[in-house]
Amino acid sequence: MQTQEMIASHPDVRGNVNKALLAAIDAAYACAQTCTSCADACLAEEMVAQLRQCIRLNLDCADVCAATATLSNRRTGSDEEVIRKMLDACATACRLCGDECQRHASMHEHCRICAESCRRCQTACQDALKTM
Amino acid sequence: MQTQEMIASHPDVRGNVNKALLAAIDAAYACAQTCTSCADACLAEEMVAQLRQCIRLNLDCADVCAATATLSNRRTGSDEEVIRKMLDACATACRLCGDECQRHASMHEHCRICAESCRRCQTACQDALKTM
Amino acid sequence: MQTQEMIASHPDVRGNVNKALLAAIDAAYACAQTCTSCADACLAEEMVAQLRQCIRLNLDCADVCAATATLSNRRTGSDEEVIRKMLDACATACRLCGDECQRHASMHEHCRICAESCRRCQTACQDALKTM
Amino acid sequence: MQTQEMIASHPDVRGNVNKALLAAIDAAYACAQTCTSCADACLAEEMVAQLRQCIRLNLDCADVCAATATLSNRRTGSDEEVIRKMLDACATACRLCGDECQRHASMHEHCRICAESCRRCQTACQDALKTM
Repeated sequence: MQTQEMIASHPDVRGNVNKALLAAIDAAYACAQTCTSCADACLAEEMVAQLRQCIRLNLDCADVCAATATLSNRRTGSDEEVIRKMLDACATACRLCGDECQRHASMHEHCRICAESCRRCQTACQDALKTM
Repeated sequence: MQTQEMIASHPDVRGNVNKALLAAIDAAYACAQTCTSCADACLAEEMVAQLRQCIRLNLDCADVCAATATLSNRRTGSDEEVIRKMLDACATACRLCGDECQRHASMHEHCRICAESCRRCQTACQDALKTM
Repeated sequence: MQTQEMIASHPDVRGNVNKALLAAIDAAYACAQTCTSCADACLAEEMVAQLRQCIRLNLDCADVCAATATLSNRRTGSDEEVIRKMLDACATACRLCGDECQRHASMHEHCRICAESCRRCQTACQDALKTM
Repeated sequence: MQTQEMIASHPDVRGNVNKALLAAIDAAYACAQTCTSCADACLAEEMVAQLRQCIRLNLDCADVCAATATLSNRRTGSDEEVIRKMLDACATACRLCGDECQRHASMHEHCRICAESCRRCQTACQDALKTM
């Protein structure tokens, strides 16, 4: 990802980037990927019936992460109130999804990796929130 | 949109739908459309330089509305905390975008229609929040 | 949805809308809703293990429909080649998903409604393609 | 991004990943980021009126890349026809957007970086298509 180079080249930013927000953007794209992939892998597991809640949270978390990453890229004008609400929603979605994935982490490698990705994104969103 | 028929046929819902949440889903899909379209129409206006903030808010609002509509469709398992946070983020995005569009409503028909769509979605999200 | 009013108010369109493309946009938003909802309802069914392919196609179809609807709204500048490719991809996704949902239509009301929604969107995308 | 580890842990994949498709997924997420960011940076440029076509193509390309990345993650069941159509649509969107960004590359660093990102994603999608 070239998030930093792109946002640093924005005419209103001119190199003065918010590093915590950059980290949240990258973590949110990465978490959208792991959650989409974990929902799909859970669906293929023999014990799919016991993974319904995990799939639900994965799909919701992927949607919130993708939207949060996308809109957090923008620096034209201002919309800080919405970024803050979305970072908060994203941290919540990642906390809930990460907790659920953790329950299956010893059994399913995809859940283990996804739980870590959710934790990283949750922390990155919380850190970004402190700067705004 | 057949949101009501679809959600009513979910095995865990069995006809017992939350009408306020249904209304928020439909309003959010409609608002994703108007905001995407308003951003695009503003970009084509001669006075585009004065519409930058409107375009920014339109794009952000479209992203939040699309994510909110999508995840609010789900009824398997539960994820109420995330739906609530997203309904709240969506109401905020719609309020800010609706206010900005309203400023250009007398000059641009697309801003006038979009401002109304944002108001409807803001109200629908707030009404849905009261039921959850 | 106020797709027609919005696009008719675009400064480069000035009322001269492509009605077949408008119909495809509305059908694609509606199909994104039914497919998202059908994936979720299938996941909650007792026989979820036999509905894996249906869920997969529903999720893919929802993603293609949402992207197709969003970008088909735009009239600033031009990008017809991409709209055509996406209308074609969307018609394909809807055909495959509609066929699969049809197989479960007698058993699951959500699959029956979703199959119809996929058919409508497939036809609308094919009709729009003929005009471009 | 942990795309490889996630897809390798899918129960139907068991380590036997398609490396060209993995590369396309990562390139498409990265290109969704650069295109979203380039549209936003172009909008803030003083010469925004001359960058309308670039913004339009950036927004369309971001939408196609995000959808292509998301659905290409899935391995449950099969939907190869749709993945192929989307990889093709994505290569087209990236070619057109990359060409337009290249025209502004000497003037705007964000267009230069985005043009490169579009080229990488176009090539990665074409390479993945050859394997399917």
